[in-house]
Amino acid sequence: MPDNEDGTGSRQAPIALDAMGGDHAPDEIVAGAVHAVRERGLSVVLVGAPRLLHEALTRHDAAAEIPIVRAEEALAMHEGALASLRRPRSSIAVACHLVRRGDASAVVSAGSTAGVVATGRLRLRGLTGVPRPAIAVTLPTLPHPTVLLDAGANAEVKPEMLVQFAQLGVAYAETALDIRRPKVGLLNIGAEAEKGNKTVKRANELLSTAPGIDFAGNIEGHDLLTGAVNVIVADGFTGNIALKTMEGTVRYAFGELRDTISTSRTARFGAFLQRSRIRELHKRLDPEQYGGAVLLGLNGTVVIAHGASKAAGVSAACEVAATLVRQGIVTRISERIAATHRPHRLW
Amino acid sequence: MPDNEDGTGSRQAPIALDAMGGDHAPDEIVAGAVHAVRERGLSVVLVGAPRLLHEALTRHDAAAEIPIVRAEEALAMHEGALASLRRPRSSIAVACHLVRRGDASAVVSAGSTAGVVATGRLRLRGLTGVPRPAIAVTLPTLPHPTVLLDAGANAEVKPEMLVQFAQLGVAYAETALDIRRPKVGLLNIGAEAEKGNKTVKRANELLSTAPGIDFAGNIEGHDLLTGAVNVIVADGFTGNIALKTMEGTVRYAFGELRDTISTSRTARFGAFLQRSRIRELHKRLDPEQYGGAVLLGLNGTVVIAHGASKAAGVSAACEVAATLVRQGIVTRISERIAATHRPHRLW
Repeated sequence: MPDNEDGTGSRQAPIALDAMGGDHAPDEIVAGAVHAVRERGLSVVLVGAPRLLHEALTRHDAAAEIPIVRAEEALAMHEGALASLRRPRSSIAVACHLVRRGDASAVVSAGSTAGVVATGRLRLRGLTGVPRPAIAVTLPTLPHPTVLLDAGANAEVKPEMLVQFAQLGVAYAETALDIRRPKVGLLNIGAEAEKGNKTVKRANELLSTAPGIDFAGNIEGHDLLTGAVNVIVADGFTGNIALKTMEGTVRYAFGELRDTISTSRTARFGAFLQRSRIRELHKRLDPEQYGGAVLLGLNGTVVIAHGASKAAGVSAACEVAATLVRQGIVTRISERIAATHRPHRLW
Repeated sequence: MPDNEDGTGSRQAPIALDAMGGDHAPDEIVAGAVHAVRERGLSVVLVGAPRLLHEALTRHDAAAEIPIVRAEEALAMHEGALASLRRPRSSIAVACHLVRRGDASAVVSAGSTAGVVATGRLRLRGLTGVPRPAIAVTLPTLPHPTVLLDAGANAEVKPEMLVQFAQLGVAYAETALDIRRPKVGLLNIGAEAEKGNKTVKRANELLSTAPGIDFAGNIEGHDLLTGAVNVIVADGFTGNIALKTMEGTVRYAFGELRDTISTSRTARFGAFLQRSRIRELHKRLDPEQYGGAVLLGLNGTVVIAHGASKAAGVSAACEVAATLVRQGIVTRISERIAATHRPHRLW
């Protein structure tokens, strides 16, 4: 198992936080680091432009608490795979390098998803038997949360990759969400096995016989939040659009609701009575609160925080990363991949 | 222009209502027909099993008001394209035949979407220059509604088909929603032109130079309800999943909300103050209220009501169909397709 992981409770290497990635970088990233260190007791290093970061830390009177690792460059939010190749010294590349060397336990970035994925694949490499990493997000379903993957790492997939994503998702649900024998659903346009495009039809066949997968068949868009299954598998194009549609709809519905309940005096009074409860609900459905997406299948833990993350979201993402490292997610995934390569060894 | 359409206000041929399609067929379909005839003053014929339908009509004391056209067979909700070939006398096939013959002005069905699409293509044929019909739904955005297509007719598409869907959507937005020069967006996983899979990348290129299309570029899942564009183009797989995800999220959010605001006495009091407003909002976001989806690109008007439609939804779908016929949607679409085949003729 990699040096940068342990389940023994002994001290973890710090989390490498990409301080230059995100709409509110570096200030909110630094504020998030300060929160993670002071309020959550986590160990964090900031990766980015030293002078900028030192100034930001000083404003929090935290220059002595949080180390800085220099990175001359950064990927802009709109930059993707190509830029990550052109910038071997970007903050995200340096953060990955720290994990590779064992000087950090995980990477957290609110930077361009495409950039983080490409850099992660390049610097951390995929685990043996995992050709393509996938982005997993945790949906706030009840009674158990639901893992959706791929949420955007692979716009073009083969049926076999969808089976692989299922394996990653199951390992993640077992490890991070503590769900035994997670049920897997394939995101499709109908419940029947023959529905959908060529790729999902074939994936449906493969999943029904895949070792170690408790396949519940196809699920549809309206099942995303019903908790019908524990792991929802999709290609990165469909998964990303489904996730953003869900986020946008939640934002829209609550926006409309806010307007609706403030359009009359009685309603405002009612709103006063309920605001706290409604806020509570909105918060649970707010993507910022999911604590970010996790890039699974690499030889290291990478958490991608929402690009719009403020300090709270960044700190939550650090917590997610630290927990995954403690749980030994990378090892658990490699074990499952190895086992499912030799079915008879799995049970 | 087809006999079954006119903008002149002279009497329309009746709407052929597939009485055997839908989760609540035939009773709720018949009840919807009775409502459409009595409350909306529409002319409707019911297509299906005569004895069943006569009994249902008699319960509404409407046997004299609404004619029945015999169809020996029906497609089950789970049946698709193949079944529609095997059952030339299904209620949906007979309904299409009535339109083909000019004995009906439009088809309304709450039956299996795949079955309605396959039967419509087979019995009504595509318009010249329209190889594949697309399902258009109208999203309740403000200030203008937004047309999303394809919502599920074509699980597998070529880039050229997405351009065609854009033409259908623009004609629909102009005709049915009275929007001048509708703005078209391509559903994708990022705003940049180079984002997405091969199909959407190519479609993005084609749309930027397509005659008669005011292309606004890519939009993402969270733009579905912002009204950023008037027409959203997607392949039927992605579009269907985005639509159902939106529907499921609305249902989930309001379900959660209902629980949230009834968990305490004060909250219940607040709920009492607001229930009407919240119901009003939920209603606007409720797919049942969109009045159904429209199958565009065929030589006849076909409205697909939600499979779960009750009388109100069925009646609303009949209204949508009657309005489209009055507006001459089929003619407007053929004119646009013809014009965009000879760009210089368009402006």
